[in-house]
Amino acid sequence: MKILIKNTTLLTMNKSNELVKYCDIAIENDSIKHIGDIPNDFVPDTVINGENKLTMPGLINSHTHIAMSLFRNYADDLPFWPWLTEKIWPLEEKLTSDSVYWGSMLSIVELIQSGVTCFSDMYFFMDDVAKAVEEVGIRAVLSRGVADINGDGEAKLVETKDFYNRWISKADGRITIMVAPHAPYTCSPDYIKKTIALAKELNIGIHIHLSETLKEVEDSYKEHDKSPIKHVSDLGLFDVNTTAAHCVHLSDEDIEILSTKGVNVINNPGSNLKLGNGFAQVDKLISKGVNVALGTDGSASNNNLNMFEEINLAAIVNKAVNLDSTSVPAIKAIEMATKNGAKALNLNSIGSIEIGKKADVILIDMKKPHYYPRHNEVSALAYSAQASDVETVIINGKIIMDNYKIKTVDLEKIYYNIDRVTKDLLKD
Amino acid sequence: MKILIKNTTLLTMNKSNELVKYCDIAIENDSIKHIGDIPNDFVPDTVINGENKLTMPGLINSHTHIAMSLFRNYADDLPFWPWLTEKIWPLEEKLTSDSVYWGSMLSIVELIQSGVTCFSDMYFFMDDVAKAVEEVGIRAVLSRGVADINGDGEAKLVETKDFYNRWISKADGRITIMVAPHAPYTCSPDYIKKTIALAKELNIGIHIHLSETLKEVEDSYKEHDKSPIKHVSDLGLFDVNTTAAHCVHLSDEDIEILSTKGVNVINNPGSNLKLGNGFAQVDKLISKGVNVALGTDGSASNNNLNMFEEINLAAIVNKAVNLDSTSVPAIKAIEMATKNGAKALNLNSIGSIEIGKKADVILIDMKKPHYYPRHNEVSALAYSAQASDVETVIINGKIIMDNYKIKTVDLEKIYYNIDRVTKDLLKD
Repeated sequence: MKILIKNTTLLTMNKSNELVKYCDIAIENDSIKHIGDIPNDFVPDTVINGENKLTMPGLINSHTHIAMSLFRNYADDLPFWPWLTEKIWPLEEKLTSDSVYWGSMLSIVELIQSGVTCFSDMYFFMDDVAKAVEEVGIRAVLSRGVADINGDGEAKLVETKDFYNRWISKADGRITIMVAPHAPYTCSPDYIKKTIALAKELNIGIHIHLSETLKEVEDSYKEHDKSPIKHVSDLGLFDVNTTAAHCVHLSDEDIEILSTKGVNVINNPGSNLKLGNGFAQVDKLISKGVNVALGTDGSASNNNLNMFEEINLAAIVNKAVNLDSTSVPAIKAIEMATKNGAKALNLNSIGSIEIGKKADVILIDMKKPHYYPRHNEVSALAYSAQASDVETVIINGKIIMDNYKIKTVDLEKIYYNIDRVTKDLLKD
Repeated sequence: MKILIKNTTLLTMNKSNELVKYCDIAIENDSIKHIGDIPNDFVPDTVINGENKLTMPGLINSHTHIAMSLFRNYADDLPFWPWLTEKIWPLEEKLTSDSVYWGSMLSIVELIQSGVTCFSDMYFFMDDVAKAVEEVGIRAVLSRGVADINGDGEAKLVETKDFYNRWISKADGRITIMVAPHAPYTCSPDYIKKTIALAKELNIGIHIHLSETLKEVEDSYKEHDKSPIKHVSDLGLFDVNTTAAHCVHLSDEDIEILSTKGVNVINNPGSNLKLGNGFAQVDKLISKGVNVALGTDGSASNNNLNMFEEINLAAIVNKAVNLDSTSVPAIKAIEMATKNGAKALNLNSIGSIEIGKKADVILIDMKKPHYYPRHNEVSALAYSAQASDVETVIINGKIIMDNYKIKTVDLEKIYYNIDRVTKDLLKD
């Protein structure tokens, strides 16, 4: 398959975040083949008119729980702990392979419609998530969330390993896998050590929640006499490539550890704000050299999977926290949603549009009032864009969404099944 | 003209914010005629299928400068005062009747596309703004921004009065007018008194910026030995119905004054965040009985006119500021964007869908992934919605946008003219 995008405005997100106007891009099989001058012997099967469109790398949602879309708008405006323990956890108990599959299908459609070409998921019934990923054609880093609070910790580690063996070479290489100890407050120190050992054995990364709430940090000091970051660091977690979601409540020592150990922090501003958890110190983390990427978290706490909202929030919220309108400029927020995500997820072949990289590409229709006048396309992406402006999505060299229509799904079937499995979930 | 909306989910925003499922709504001429049972003798000219759609009052953008869309994405990520004085003000000097007209046309399209049926504008060349309002069919409260820093204060007051006399009964009553002293730091005490006198003479309200930046508050203490709120209150400003934009930096005494004097506060979270000005105390203002409405501010500082973003920000930002996920629940944020706005702008016939009210109505297409499952429509509006979900917009009983298409404008002509006037603005 050969695709030619003609005459577009290209935001490369390469090392210098180069923006190229009136640019042609040639895609062959799963990769970017040419940018700029296209050789005469490149004969495309499909030509996409890129005029009035901005072409950029697909967005990377580096922390989510996609099947939680089933709980979207189910229990809002409640205090965090009752929300989690009295509302969300009891419904999660009732999830099945069937409901997780349909919740994942729904979410993957939402992700693609809003320009996400890769997501990092931590949940359960992961075979069903993987099945949905394979079918729809998105790229994903999948992690079976594990914990030992219910006495089934060992079984979950076995599940992780089995899942790894079943899926690691499937879906044209679009699926990679991590080990996912849920959080220090749901995993004992010994158990965390076991997850580290498993990650080392399989030579894969770790996906974990850290320092999301004030209570978590206070409890950690009570129990371990140190912060959650210091606690897991001392257990050796950061010897493995780690993506640590949230990291909202950090001491200077915590930031020093994250920086020294090369931990990837996943900022989830929408979820942190909505759950009343506070503001992560994104500016400080970036200035200390920490790789900060961006995620939506699950749709129970956001309540959508809209990465353009997260880019906007990352850019504007930190300005108000720091009373400094130069904090987290537009391009930094876009880096968080593209190449920083790729780095965090250890996917070096995505995150930018460069020759030889995988063709994970989105086209944004700028022929809409909120893109006029065209003073600055980078600003436009961070401060004016809507997720619904994404018109075309190419993943791994395949056109998955064309003129706003996803080609690999039957939307009516998804809606029908979401209604069906939701009724089952809400039954007493 | 008689319109029948059939079988919709109606969010009334009446006193009890009632939500009615499977509801019919009959519109006759400019008003809501029936809700629920429709008499047999009501024979509609147009029937709108409301299935899978949420029908609600049109959003009210209570503080903006719409022609500033011309400066969208022009000067971002700069410190506030250089941004305002070195970038925005010099370009504003070059504005003409022609450029303000086209900037207004562009913005009114953006407003309608995102579900806004009424906006409150403070700017200049207001005849051109009014002309655009009349042509496109939106409702507006228009204010000629006035100040006496350039020695032309008197002339601007005359302009305000002339503008009032020219437009007060035009555009089928869709235009009302306010007197708009820009801010205490651009209007001398004597001049503010003159604006108060003019507002009293014309029996209309006041639209002003108050306590937007820390610098403004500090300067006010230096110059007047009191806060901007106390300063204008002592001058008698609040004896007139006032909408005060921003009110970010408030003392407890300020809040007491705003509450006692019945001042309408317009919260502009997007702009306050992006310009690094901080977080307004929305929760506290509401709890003290202050009427808080919502605005986008101009597109130079936002950088769009997307009220769904503002609803979302109002709902989630205050939760993080207060570390309390119950702060500003979804319905309160929606109140800010509907009936609180109507109250602030002294437009008692809009802001809710009730029999006898003006038919300013929007329909939101909920047949999209981010609206599934349908656990809670109110939460969905505040936490999941995108502005682009607005499918139909009715203003003053006329269908202005039908199936995403605005019927009263030529979009290509607007884009062409925006390109043209922008080139002129950027010329040396």
